[in-house]
Amino acid sequence: MTRSRPSDSASPERVGLWLVGARGAISTCVAHGLSGLRQGLLDSTGLVTARGPLAELPLLDCGQLVLGGWDVCRRPLSQSASELADMRVLSGPLVAAAAGDLAAFEQRLRAGILDPSDGEPADLDPQAASTSRLTPRQKVARLLADLNQFQRDSGLARVVVVHVASTEIARAPAADWSDLASFERALDDGRPQPASVLYAYAAISGGFSFVNFTPNVGSAVPALQELARSRGVAHCGNDGKTGETLVKTALAPLFVARNLKVLAWQGYNMLGNRDGEVLADPLHRAGKLRSKSDALRAILEDPGLHHQVAIDFVPSLRDWKTAWDFVHFEGFLGAQMSLQFTWQGSDSALAAPLVIDLVRLTELAQRRGEAGVMEHTASFFKSPIAGGSHDFHQQFRTLIEYAQRRG
Amino acid sequence: MTRSRPSDSASPERVGLWLVGARGAISTCVAHGLSGLRQGLLDSTGLVTARGPLAELPLLDCGQLVLGGWDVCRRPLSQSASELADMRVLSGPLVAAAAGDLAAFEQRLRAGILDPSDGEPADLDPQAASTSRLTPRQKVARLLADLNQFQRDSGLARVVVVHVASTEIARAPAADWSDLASFERALDDGRPQPASVLYAYAAISGGFSFVNFTPNVGSAVPALQELARSRGVAHCGNDGKTGETLVKTALAPLFVARNLKVLAWQGYNMLGNRDGEVLADPLHRAGKLRSKSDALRAILEDPGLHHQVAIDFVPSLRDWKTAWDFVHFEGFLGAQMSLQFTWQGSDSALAAPLVIDLVRLTELAQRRGEAGVMEHTASFFKSPIAGGSHDFHQQFRTLIEYAQRRG
Amino acid sequence: MTRSRPSDSASPERVGLWLVGARGAISTCVAHGLSGLRQGLLDSTGLVTARGPLAELPLLDCGQLVLGGWDVCRRPLSQSASELADMRVLSGPLVAAAAGDLAAFEQRLRAGILDPSDGEPADLDPQAASTSRLTPRQKVARLLADLNQFQRDSGLARVVVVHVASTEIARAPAADWSDLASFERALDDGRPQPASVLYAYAAISGGFSFVNFTPNVGSAVPALQELARSRGVAHCGNDGKTGETLVKTALAPLFVARNLKVLAWQGYNMLGNRDGEVLADPLHRAGKLRSKSDALRAILEDPGLHHQVAIDFVPSLRDWKTAWDFVHFEGFLGAQMSLQFTWQGSDSALAAPLVIDLVRLTELAQRRGEAGVMEHTASFFKSPIAGGSHDFHQQFRTLIEYAQRRG
Amino acid sequence: MTRSRPSDSASPERVGLWLVGARGAISTCVAHGLSGLRQGLLDSTGLVTARGPLAELPLLDCGQLVLGGWDVCRRPLSQSASELADMRVLSGPLVAAAAGDLAAFEQRLRAGILDPSDGEPADLDPQAASTSRLTPRQKVARLLADLNQFQRDSGLARVVVVHVASTEIARAPAADWSDLASFERALDDGRPQPASVLYAYAAISGGFSFVNFTPNVGSAVPALQELARSRGVAHCGNDGKTGETLVKTALAPLFVARNLKVLAWQGYNMLGNRDGEVLADPLHRAGKLRSKSDALRAILEDPGLHHQVAIDFVPSLRDWKTAWDFVHFEGFLGAQMSLQFTWQGSDSALAAPLVIDLVRLTELAQRRGEAGVMEHTASFFKSPIAGGSHDFHQQFRTLIEYAQRRG
Repeated sequence: MTRSRPSDSASPERVGLWLVGARGAISTCVAHGLSGLRQGLLDSTGLVTARGPLAELPLLDCGQLVLGGWDVCRRPLSQSASELADMRVLSGPLVAAAAGDLAAFEQRLRAGILDPSDGEPADLDPQAASTSRLTPRQKVARLLADLNQFQRDSGLARVVVVHVASTEIARAPAADWSDLASFERALDDGRPQPASVLYAYAAISGGFSFVNFTPNVGSAVPALQELARSRGVAHCGNDGKTGETLVKTALAPLFVARNLKVLAWQGYNMLGNRDGEVLADPLHRAGKLRSKSDALRAILEDPGLHHQVAIDFVPSLRDWKTAWDFVHFEGFLGAQMSLQFTWQGSDSALAAPLVIDLVRLTELAQRRGEAGVMEHTASFFKSPIAGGSHDFHQQFRTLIEYAQRRG
Repeated sequence: MTRSRPSDSASPERVGLWLVGARGAISTCVAHGLSGLRQGLLDSTGLVTARGPLAELPLLDCGQLVLGGWDVCRRPLSQSASELADMRVLSGPLVAAAAGDLAAFEQRLRAGILDPSDGEPADLDPQAASTSRLTPRQKVARLLADLNQFQRDSGLARVVVVHVASTEIARAPAADWSDLASFERALDDGRPQPASVLYAYAAISGGFSFVNFTPNVGSAVPALQELARSRGVAHCGNDGKTGETLVKTALAPLFVARNLKVLAWQGYNMLGNRDGEVLADPLHRAGKLRSKSDALRAILEDPGLHHQVAIDFVPSLRDWKTAWDFVHFEGFLGAQMSLQFTWQGSDSALAAPLVIDLVRLTELAQRRGEAGVMEHTASFFKSPIAGGSHDFHQQFRTLIEYAQRRG
Repeated sequence: MTRSRPSDSASPERVGLWLVGARGAISTCVAHGLSGLRQGLLDSTGLVTARGPLAELPLLDCGQLVLGGWDVCRRPLSQSASELADMRVLSGPLVAAAAGDLAAFEQRLRAGILDPSDGEPADLDPQAASTSRLTPRQKVARLLADLNQFQRDSGLARVVVVHVASTEIARAPAADWSDLASFERALDDGRPQPASVLYAYAAISGGFSFVNFTPNVGSAVPALQELARSRGVAHCGNDGKTGETLVKTALAPLFVARNLKVLAWQGYNMLGNRDGEVLADPLHRAGKLRSKSDALRAILEDPGLHHQVAIDFVPSLRDWKTAWDFVHFEGFLGAQMSLQFTWQGSDSALAAPLVIDLVRLTELAQRRGEAGVMEHTASFFKSPIAGGSHDFHQQFRTLIEYAQRRG
Repeated sequence: MTRSRPSDSASPERVGLWLVGARGAISTCVAHGLSGLRQGLLDSTGLVTARGPLAELPLLDCGQLVLGGWDVCRRPLSQSASELADMRVLSGPLVAAAAGDLAAFEQRLRAGILDPSDGEPADLDPQAASTSRLTPRQKVARLLADLNQFQRDSGLARVVVVHVASTEIARAPAADWSDLASFERALDDGRPQPASVLYAYAAISGGFSFVNFTPNVGSAVPALQELARSRGVAHCGNDGKTGETLVKTALAPLFVARNLKVLAWQGYNMLGNRDGEVLADPLHRAGKLRSKSDALRAILEDPGLHHQVAIDFVPSLRDWKTAWDFVHFEGFLGAQMSLQFTWQGSDSALAAPLVIDLVRLTELAQRRGEAGVMEHTASFFKSPIAGGSHDFHQQFRTLIEYAQRRG
């Protein structure tokens, strides 16, 4: 992160990072992290792009980033920050030092759009609420206007839109999404769409690259992939791989390599933040559970694997998610054995650096004209849009090879 | 394992597997496993060479193997078998079905040689005890005679010697071992040598390939590597990677990839079998501890890592070793997190299939004239002779690439 | 168990143990355990009544017990035994040595009655199936005839009926159960009743003491408690406390004593036997979950406690249930801490000795004329009929005091 | 804590709490805790005496306490406080609010005496260092003068001395300690004594009650017990039971009650604070290990129990000690099972409230003239001076009965 490059010395370009869910815990951590890095209060621990061959890529410096974003609630960023300090994710000194940067960020926030499945949170932004009355086309126009204004007002060379808002209800593939023409027709006909799809459509159609850190549909459907290719836009997702699934996809290849037969893999997840609260609802939970369990079945090449994943809302844990996995397996001679692990980490502190990494990688891809799905980012996601292996080590090797090839 | 190959149909060659520590738990499991596989009572779960591109290599069939070996004690194989059945590693029906094969194996056992650091076990074979009076050259001559007789009597095309006996005391590198000439001089001068080194020397000098599954010195020293190259002998080792270290070297790369700072990695190992009893002695434990901790420091590229590994003898666990690891690490924003895992498995049922895999791979290398250290077997060992990465996934990729290149 | 008492020397009375669910895993373990104890193949490990002041009570000797029972399926006992041997709960030698006793037990088995909520298991006994057509009064008459015949044919001084069959669906308290007169009327009117209630009614009305080891309603309702008092019958239940709840009720008092505030207690249970299969159905699971969670709320005196209990069916575990509990708590200065535990045990080997203990205690109470609910057995149950503390240590002290007072 | 009592209304007595190791983490937490309680910033969570019948005892109010103490180092209390805030044991707002109380406490600190086994810490107080040249009698005189001055200057009705300094090396029982006369003679002869013994002697001989929260010898020897009885002084110890041993002594009685045979109990403790640093030395560790393992052998009534306890220094954990225990046990039918637990808590936040509880109980005993060992405090200690059961629940019942009898 600290390498000086000749091109930086003159007058580096400014790049926009536009966050969907900008008042939430991940966004607040991203903003504090960038501020802390710029002020030399934090080191690059946790940033994938700060190490090894990735650090040799001509990625943007954090100092080039300008933050803005959408949210559907009005909770002040200072409140999010003090909650995160209280739950011991952010340190008091960092919150104090970043206050100025946070205030500037807050000036650039706009009201987002509601998803049809959203409830009515207590702190709902009335402007966001009022979008329920708009047609999909009207929503998109409004979102696009926000992005264009952000780029113009801040003098930005490029803008990366990153979706880190709450999990929407799980949705089956829709005929509207099968190709771009169908989707455009659906918009013309005013058929309601998930918020994440409209955010992605607005960004990509405006030429802004798009990162989906949530399990929501976003840009993963054929229609939007087609749009991204045609508009020359780089995009990636879905669902940041930060905790239990990360460990799972790092461990499961071991069982394959050693030809050990996994008899059952049980995963129990507990978390207490807003994401946990939303996931307490079975409909919202469904999408997350699917991406968590598909990965394992794919790696173990066992579609009939006995594999259950649970997510429970445990408010007292707040941001500190805790997961316990139990793996029952059989070895040679029919001997039955087990492996269990407990993972305890801060959800937001795990996610925030990956968001920064993805912005850096996406901006580079966009700058270099690498349009379409960024296959080399698969290791960041539970459900990589481009598919491929779920084996974390294979995914990460793809990223390293990208860096070595393109560095 | 079950692929029929044209070359098999006529009259397949017979290949010898000569086990050092032939009356111990691993050897007993190897013998039962081979018998069970031949009789269709077991499937190939746990055998690395039975899956993926490795299964496409022209490896020997288990039916081709003839077993023999050395031991320094007189415990009957039937006693080892019934102990393993009692501790629920071997099933009763398998023990019954394999009794004939075991009896034939027992016929081919010979007295081994004592290591200078060996105590006097209750069931010590007097013939083995009497070897203490022999010079190193006399010991080697005797060992070589056993191997030649085994090959001749059983009509074997090739013999692979596999060292699975107890852990010797840890030894510092000796000047005698620095090159072959020095070692030959040391033998001529009658300077005592570790038993594992004499086993390796006897095998390799006789043209027999050698696998060292223990942390003992064996063939890892420059003198014997030189001998192996000059005699055209394939060899590999040291110290089978079967449990906690296996999981550790599969998980540690995750922390590197995600740039998470490991603050401390504590590993507690408990086991209750004869190996555990020997390791209860600090001098014997030292070698094992070193190979267990060096691997982690190498992967994390942190020579100053706070890393402690303990091995405790817990007799009631018998063969069921249990390990608990605690990883304390720091992520972005200075957030401190942890991962802990508990591994519960049968030591012998984990080791036995790897012995069979290594015999198959070694015999192939020997047959093909691939002399010297078998670098592609690194994933099987805690301290691969050829060095290279300790990252399990990198090591395993090397093996897969070997198979794809040579298949 | 082995104390010789003068009264034994002459000709000890024979006592019947009549098991409901007699072909299941617990019954099979009870039968093997009694046979093994009698033959000196097992020691008294796991038997509560074999230690301390309880061993001083004039309890029956295991040799006095004659086994019989009901089941609704036809699975041979030998199959249950070989399954338990295969899953390594029973040893092969014990199964062989107990074969004669098991055959005698099997001769005394009769068809039980179906519960209205029962499905149609593959191995359903047609005689049991045919009971669906009977009125409650007819069922009771049939059950009572079986008990009387058992007592008469085997020359038994007393019979203890122990319910160890599968979990029925959870049932809300019914008006029919509020007093004996209402219940008799319900029987007269032919209103369907849970099988467990009819088993309890048949036993108690016939003067046979009754132990309910399941979460089913059984004799816990006011009507049957009234019947037991009026008929002078000793009874106890519900739901044997064998695993996770046992540990929970032993640990929770620690938090109370130290005034530590439990913020959340999450309990995840996995099991793979027939009980687990039945509990995979949410309706059947409900009763079990309630008795598991009520205990904790009572001990912690916190009705609003965040406490979730899950039970998952993991077939590969078979009888080896595994539970993980996570306790999040707050100490002085607002410091948040945690305790987690993993419990791995054989469901049947944990339950079987408690069944024998309860038979011994119940028979003594009956012999001494202690009619009604046996409050001193609370430590054996997740939902003691008599209520009182759920604190295991308090419950156990009550038992010790009973022994010291009555010894 | 907040009950007003008639006697308090007028002008409550002031009581001194004199801490040995007054600049350490526990003392710093005690001082912050008392300040926070007085200011209404903390509730009584973690205080044993604030709940149940104990809260009905006429114990002192926290507002009555005046703090002072000894230390051998010069580290400012503000540094200890900011370290504890940094390691997230104390909250920033509490540290700020307690600053005035801490400054007043610091004014009342005096130099302590070195133990012969102490090294030379970097921040050693030269005045403490100079005590090495004094005879035991001179040391005692100096300590006593400090206590008398504290009482006089602060106008204190009573003073309780609490030893919370570092662990000394383990010491075998000495002949000097066998009775008071021998000990007085040893002092006259100038034979060196452990610092903890001199602290205890000074306090008790001066009529001040004494609490030993460490595994050091303190007042546990016959000579000092005799002194306490003759001087009418209440005292208690040794070694606060705050973490792994607490859980162990709460769980072990379960195995006894259920007649489960513990085959092995392994306990692994990790901690990173100054106590951990001192315990990294085997001589210092020995005392702690003994009190941790004796308790278990006593409860399980199995002197030959396979039981190992390890304490490892893991600096990154700082105050957050983490322990993993593995219990291997056998149940009925020879079935082998296991229980494992992980305990994660703040060492100081667990200890501090117990110090306050013990001061309250000791002051009451002293006020009431209950001289000698306070047997009712056994539940607070790993090695209660008065001996008796190590079973936490039995110990705690003794305390409850004391309260009910004396309330």
